[in-house]
Amino acid sequence: MDHEIRKHSAKIGLSPGSFIYTGEKKVEEVKISVIDYNRQHLEKHVVNRIEDTFPYNDSDSVSWINIDGLHEVEILQKINEHYEIHPLVIEDILSTNQRPKIEFFDNYIYIVTRMMKYDEKQHVINSEQISLILGKNFVITFQEVEGDIFDPLRQRIANENGRIRRSGADYLAYAILDIIVDNYFLILDTLGDEIESLDEKVLENASDEGIVKQIHHLKRELLFLRKSTWPLREVISNLQREESKLIKKQTIRFVNDLYDHTIQVIDTVETYREMASGILDLYLTSISNRMNEVMKVLTIIATIFIPLSFIAGIYGMNFDTAISPFNMPELGFRYGYLIFWMLTVGIAGGLLIFFRKKRWL
Amino acid sequence: MDHEIRKHSAKIGLSPGSFIYTGEKKVEEVKISVIDYNRQHLEKHVVNRIEDTFPYNDSDSVSWINIDGLHEVEILQKINEHYEIHPLVIEDILSTNQRPKIEFFDNYIYIVTRMMKYDEKQHVINSEQISLILGKNFVITFQEVEGDIFDPLRQRIANENGRIRRSGADYLAYAILDIIVDNYFLILDTLGDEIESLDEKVLENASDEGIVKQIHHLKRELLFLRKSTWPLREVISNLQREESKLIKKQTIRFVNDLYDHTIQVIDTVETYREMASGILDLYLTSISNRMNEVMKVLTIIATIFIPLSFIAGIYGMNFDTAISPFNMPELGFRYGYLIFWMLTVGIAGGLLIFFRKKRWL
Amino acid sequence: MDHEIRKHSAKIGLSPGSFIYTGEKKVEEVKISVIDYNRQHLEKHVVNRIEDTFPYNDSDSVSWINIDGLHEVEILQKINEHYEIHPLVIEDILSTNQRPKIEFFDNYIYIVTRMMKYDEKQHVINSEQISLILGKNFVITFQEVEGDIFDPLRQRIANENGRIRRSGADYLAYAILDIIVDNYFLILDTLGDEIESLDEKVLENASDEGIVKQIHHLKRELLFLRKSTWPLREVISNLQREESKLIKKQTIRFVNDLYDHTIQVIDTVETYREMASGILDLYLTSISNRMNEVMKVLTIIATIFIPLSFIAGIYGMNFDTAISPFNMPELGFRYGYLIFWMLTVGIAGGLLIFFRKKRWL
Amino acid sequence: MDHEIRKHSAKIGLSPGSFIYTGEKKVEEVKISVIDYNRQHLEKHVVNRIEDTFPYNDSDSVSWINIDGLHEVEILQKINEHYEIHPLVIEDILSTNQRPKIEFFDNYIYIVTRMMKYDEKQHVINSEQISLILGKNFVITFQEVEGDIFDPLRQRIANENGRIRRSGADYLAYAILDIIVDNYFLILDTLGDEIESLDEKVLENASDEGIVKQIHHLKRELLFLRKSTWPLREVISNLQREESKLIKKQTIRFVNDLYDHTIQVIDTVETYREMASGILDLYLTSISNRMNEVMKVLTIIATIFIPLSFIAGIYGMNFDTAISPFNMPELGFRYGYLIFWMLTVGIAGGLLIFFRKKRWL
Amino acid sequence: MDHEIRKHSAKIGLSPGSFIYTGEKKVEEVKISVIDYNRQHLEKHVVNRIEDTFPYNDSDSVSWINIDGLHEVEILQKINEHYEIHPLVIEDILSTNQRPKIEFFDNYIYIVTRMMKYDEKQHVINSEQISLILGKNFVITFQEVEGDIFDPLRQRIANENGRIRRSGADYLAYAILDIIVDNYFLILDTLGDEIESLDEKVLENASDEGIVKQIHHLKRELLFLRKSTWPLREVISNLQREESKLIKKQTIRFVNDLYDHTIQVIDTVETYREMASGILDLYLTSISNRMNEVMKVLTIIATIFIPLSFIAGIYGMNFDTAISPFNMPELGFRYGYLIFWMLTVGIAGGLLIFFRKKRWL
Repeated sequence: MDHEIRKHSAKIGLSPGSFIYTGEKKVEEVKISVIDYNRQHLEKHVVNRIEDTFPYNDSDSVSWINIDGLHEVEILQKINEHYEIHPLVIEDILSTNQRPKIEFFDNYIYIVTRMMKYDEKQHVINSEQISLILGKNFVITFQEVEGDIFDPLRQRIANENGRIRRSGADYLAYAILDIIVDNYFLILDTLGDEIESLDEKVLENASDEGIVKQIHHLKRELLFLRKSTWPLREVISNLQREESKLIKKQTIRFVNDLYDHTIQVIDTVETYREMASGILDLYLTSISNRMNEVMKVLTIIATIFIPLSFIAGIYGMNFDTAISPFNMPELGFRYGYLIFWMLTVGIAGGLLIFFRKKRWL
Repeated sequence: MDHEIRKHSAKIGLSPGSFIYTGEKKVEEVKISVIDYNRQHLEKHVVNRIEDTFPYNDSDSVSWINIDGLHEVEILQKINEHYEIHPLVIEDILSTNQRPKIEFFDNYIYIVTRMMKYDEKQHVINSEQISLILGKNFVITFQEVEGDIFDPLRQRIANENGRIRRSGADYLAYAILDIIVDNYFLILDTLGDEIESLDEKVLENASDEGIVKQIHHLKRELLFLRKSTWPLREVISNLQREESKLIKKQTIRFVNDLYDHTIQVIDTVETYREMASGILDLYLTSISNRMNEVMKVLTIIATIFIPLSFIAGIYGMNFDTAISPFNMPELGFRYGYLIFWMLTVGIAGGLLIFFRKKRWL
Repeated sequence: MDHEIRKHSAKIGLSPGSFIYTGEKKVEEVKISVIDYNRQHLEKHVVNRIEDTFPYNDSDSVSWINIDGLHEVEILQKINEHYEIHPLVIEDILSTNQRPKIEFFDNYIYIVTRMMKYDEKQHVINSEQISLILGKNFVITFQEVEGDIFDPLRQRIANENGRIRRSGADYLAYAILDIIVDNYFLILDTLGDEIESLDEKVLENASDEGIVKQIHHLKRELLFLRKSTWPLREVISNLQREESKLIKKQTIRFVNDLYDHTIQVIDTVETYREMASGILDLYLTSISNRMNEVMKVLTIIATIFIPLSFIAGIYGMNFDTAISPFNMPELGFRYGYLIFWMLTVGIAGGLLIFFRKKRWL
Repeated sequence: MDHEIRKHSAKIGLSPGSFIYTGEKKVEEVKISVIDYNRQHLEKHVVNRIEDTFPYNDSDSVSWINIDGLHEVEILQKINEHYEIHPLVIEDILSTNQRPKIEFFDNYIYIVTRMMKYDEKQHVINSEQISLILGKNFVITFQEVEGDIFDPLRQRIANENGRIRRSGADYLAYAILDIIVDNYFLILDTLGDEIESLDEKVLENASDEGIVKQIHHLKRELLFLRKSTWPLREVISNLQREESKLIKKQTIRFVNDLYDHTIQVIDTVETYREMASGILDLYLTSISNRMNEVMKVLTIIATIFIPLSFIAGIYGMNFDTAISPFNMPELGFRYGYLIFWMLTVGIAGGLLIFFRKKRWL
Repeated sequence: MDHEIRKHSAKIGLSPGSFIYTGEKKVEEVKISVIDYNRQHLEKHVVNRIEDTFPYNDSDSVSWINIDGLHEVEILQKINEHYEIHPLVIEDILSTNQRPKIEFFDNYIYIVTRMMKYDEKQHVINSEQISLILGKNFVITFQEVEGDIFDPLRQRIANENGRIRRSGADYLAYAILDIIVDNYFLILDTLGDEIESLDEKVLENASDEGIVKQIHHLKRELLFLRKSTWPLREVISNLQREESKLIKKQTIRFVNDLYDHTIQVIDTVETYREMASGILDLYLTSISNRMNEVMKVLTIIATIFIPLSFIAGIYGMNFDTAISPFNMPELGFRYGYLIFWMLTVGIAGGLLIFFRKKRWL
């Protein structure tokens, strides 16, 4: 559950625009890869120095530079100098607990999003900040760790006939965002399965306390998802409306579609939140119901036998019957014991009828 | 309850605009029917190939092409080519877990809605995606399964004097949406009956736990309905306001009416949600009340008889009265037993008065 | 409680603009009355046929046609033809479960409202749809049943010096709406009394379960009121803002006042809803408190006497004291019984001090 | 608690603009006072007839006419005639349960506010309607009862060097509203003290039920305050924005300040509401906790001694040991009683270990 | 917890714009320091009289005058005269319970914010009002107490190459606000740790009541934080949008970044509020669960042994077996005692099976 509570205080007092990486060093080495393509040609390289990617941007073809690992601040410094990126943007790329946002500059657009990954072993959602800079004919993406979510996209680029090969850098940026949003659906499917399984468990009256912890955990994950997805809606909505010369008109139609997907993610998160609350309510009601049942059993048993025990207790007393005829004459009755049993059965029966009338039985 | 949790992940990584049907294959064969009409003439056909419907669109009369079953992707490919429909629209038609939405294109309008059907046997709401393309003089509708909800509309078209025969494709689209919204009322009536019956049961203090499950189920259904109807409001509101040359002015008045109906549906869903919450509150309060009553009975009985049993226990002790006059002299009293009874009745009476004063009796 | 759950499904599949009355036939005969007035003259008639009212509209004086009972559809058909009312309006007049709304047409305004009446016997709010058509110099009102709420208005019209005689049809329409809104205050006063009485009952710790049912009922009524009044606000707000040539400028000032009243109604409904929730909270807390008290009494009595009974039980055992000096030697002690009592009183006293320390006593 | 539930129904059916006082007659006699001032001169009078105040308005100096008591309707009639006040305004002044509002007329502004006073004896907030008419160079205020809240203002007017003497009627109106809003802070301070004291009581685990009633009462008062302050925000916001020639530009800056105060009042009311809810939650949790503790004590005692009593009961049975060696041979054992005690202590000890493991002890 | 409930009533009835300090005197002496800098030079002084700072403002370099301690009202009077600050602003500076706000004047901007400090010893958040006046080439800040939060900023100014030395007074004002907002992150980190630790405690089923008090306390702190941060968002949003000649265009980009930080603070506060509620829910559910478990143990033990004790009680009765063969013949049976044990074990076993079936064991 450590994902929700990230330290923010590392940089307090520093000058705004300072280049300091606030996250953990999640990968050993920074990996820089570049894909350069247009309708005819396609080049893929893994380079050692960020400077090696600069020539690609001078060409007319679309260049996608992907940087995995953020702890080598000099790389960002060089990007800042070569592409004339605002220092605050560089600072934001390095602060890996940003809220999703979009910023429009004269010759580039800066987008921050969060990528989610469900850790099957620990049953937690891990999140990673993915920053994206869209320039005239290049896209630079920054990831905290090396990941494989962009692999399908790389395959689509490899396909000579794909739309992406015929489109510009704006379509590439859209495709990257689209894959990130699609990943939310994966998380949602996992959480949806969890909700269904919890719902069934609670409906079957399983009473182990683990369920509460699972619901609690689920609500946390949903809260966390919500925190990442609501601002994403604004990001994509701004991308739709802002008239930037970097976004071509035919790409807008695709961004609209992406917006619909984002809305659907948010909608589903909200629905799941309500469902999780509903399951908790159901669980609490079940506990109350069961407590009620337990109490009834206790009450019925105790209410029947406590008076009977009292009567039995009476005739176990040792008052001296020899001294006086007033002392426990019943003990000397011929049918005393029979009368005792009749009394006992009578009281028990009466109480049972009383409970039946109260609908406790 | 599987309707709310649909898998979204089937298509992750695919290129946007890929034509892949994500739903289950719900019908064996795709059924294509076409109705072509104007004020004077009316033709109805069931055709085998989608190409057979294309000639109808060239005429001035209104053509309604209805396609039941979506698993034959080639049909959509041909529609895409013939009517020049945007690939993202085709993709949306095939992704059968869309949120209701509307999209305006230069020469057609694309609307996605969800149709609800109450499954009387399983007591669940089934939902189906209905997509609609409104062109200059044609309407194409896509259903996941063959259904009969459009039958009344077909009858109205058959009636030579109906307004629909005198109106264009925009009125036909309106009429289709109107029937879909009217169907929500059917669902609402069923849920309303359920709410009333639950309310009565809870008011009558029926305590079986099944009620909680029913309320839980009802709240789910309402959550589900709400998720489908809120976006519908936006869809129809956009249809009202957007000035498209495909919608004639006199039709707008009807769309306004449809908007009012949608608002009424949403209103009713929200009211039902509050009512369901109210019933749950009432149920929980009833449980508390009954638990309280159970506790009181137990407490009264136990509190009266436990001290009495103790007294009876005392005089059942076997201290040797012979050894010393201090050992249980009461046992030798002439009226010992009578005094015991007076004590007993006195204590019981006192406690009863105490309980009466506390208003427990 | 049947008012909230009205059937909507009666008309599904019918052509929009069909003239079918969906409500119950609440009155035997339709009653048509007409009042025609201007500053100088005043005429009142009850007519048999709707055609008899048409001549009044041709004059310059203001005509108020009131129709009680909606089951004779032909009347509405004739109105539709004579006044050129849109068929959807006629349909709405006949569908008596409309949400309050306003629609502006070129030569008339159509307003739907709901009138509330508190049924003193059954303690339910009955609601009735009142439709109003405001034309150039006439107002037509439609009621489901014959009622007397407009009587004060008729008296004001009878008064030669009243403002209403000097004003036009728009002022008459305002006056009708004003009376309807004023009636909400009547309902609110009744509900306010109920809230106060419930509040007092709960504060006095009255514990009968009937209170929960009353609160539940009250919340329902408020939910129902809210559903009718929120849209009314929009209706009157639109009446204020929309610039229709049918509404004179000096009447707007009165409509503003009416708007303030509507806001006050809504405000009061919301406040009452919060108060009702507060009362339910108070009730639930009282139950918990009382349960706690019950439990304490039980625990104190049981905790004191159960150990004591055990001790008494010990000395009621029949171990053979003759066989061995280890078998219950206490029974043969000279002061055994006195020691028993000292032990007993000591334990009881100790427990009482323990309970006092825990603040249970 | 009678303040929140005022009767609204007194005037139903009356013509709008009827002059009828709906409140109680709270003062014996109507008191009319007038203060006329400018930078140089200052006059104060108490007059008998409203007509005596009219001359002051003709002068250039600022006149403040204050009327305490509203039951003499003729006074308002004369004001209506002399100042040409709209009849609906007069009606609103007389209806003393108005929601705060502002209305702009050509030559005057009408403002309704509610003044709060905390009744220290009965621990309730009393509210009074204060109406204010701001004209070109006069302000008329209407109070239900004679009060002293305006005394500090009168002193400031008496001070020759005060800003108020150099400013116009608009500044006077602002100063009156400012004093009314400042009074809310007084109420809030009282409620804040109450919240703090309740919070401490609940944290100290005081369990008397009176606390619930106090929290309930507090929430009511806050609900009531909220109802009066939210609309006030709108009133002052409109005063800020509406460009009326009656409000000078330099006064707007002061109105802005007043707006900030109003926001602060609302903010504090909302915060207090949340705090009150928090206290109720804390109280409920405390009850649950204490119930839990009570139950544990009962369970521990009962669980230990009930089985022990059963064992003691066994050896109190009178099976005839003489008849058969199978009948209760333990009674004849040499160490029977010692074994009984060992068993007893063993069971009790085992249960104590069990409870300790369950963390009940 | 005294921070949330500050007295507002000190100044009621005073003329608006009165210079009276409403806070406590938190420092002994007022400390006035001035930093004057531009790209080339830097001067730092602590002065005794406010007049000594005035010459710095006449120069072109940026002057930052910081005043710690507000109880010497004459200082503010002199500032008011020298800089022509509106009296209402001076009043606001002195009223140290302001809501964060911004006001634009012709030649200066006035901003109120609240600075938070976590008191490690008392576990409360202390808040202090920081006012800021931004003029053409000067910034004046007012603090209630002397603090060290601006020290990092002073160091940045001391650095000759820092951006701040190359920028104007608007950037200085931004940097001050940025440090204040960054401080919120510090508080949030502390609260985040508290939430995590509470969450763990509750998940581990720790049941001491202290946890409830901690959650209650935490919710209060969050409520308090929220009250200070929501208006801050508006403040900074206005700073962004309002086109003031005092804010240079390149500074706006930094203000945007500050706005994002503020949003992140608010977002985190809201998330923490939800998390705190979630923990409370979890705690309550745990209590219910544990109560349920306690009840089950009691019920199982009591239900098994109460009937058995009754049976043992029966055979402890002293009916005279000599008188009649009907009186307790079982006592004389050869295997009576064995039968008794078989009965006993049978009943206990049956009940255990019953409980197992009910899943209580």
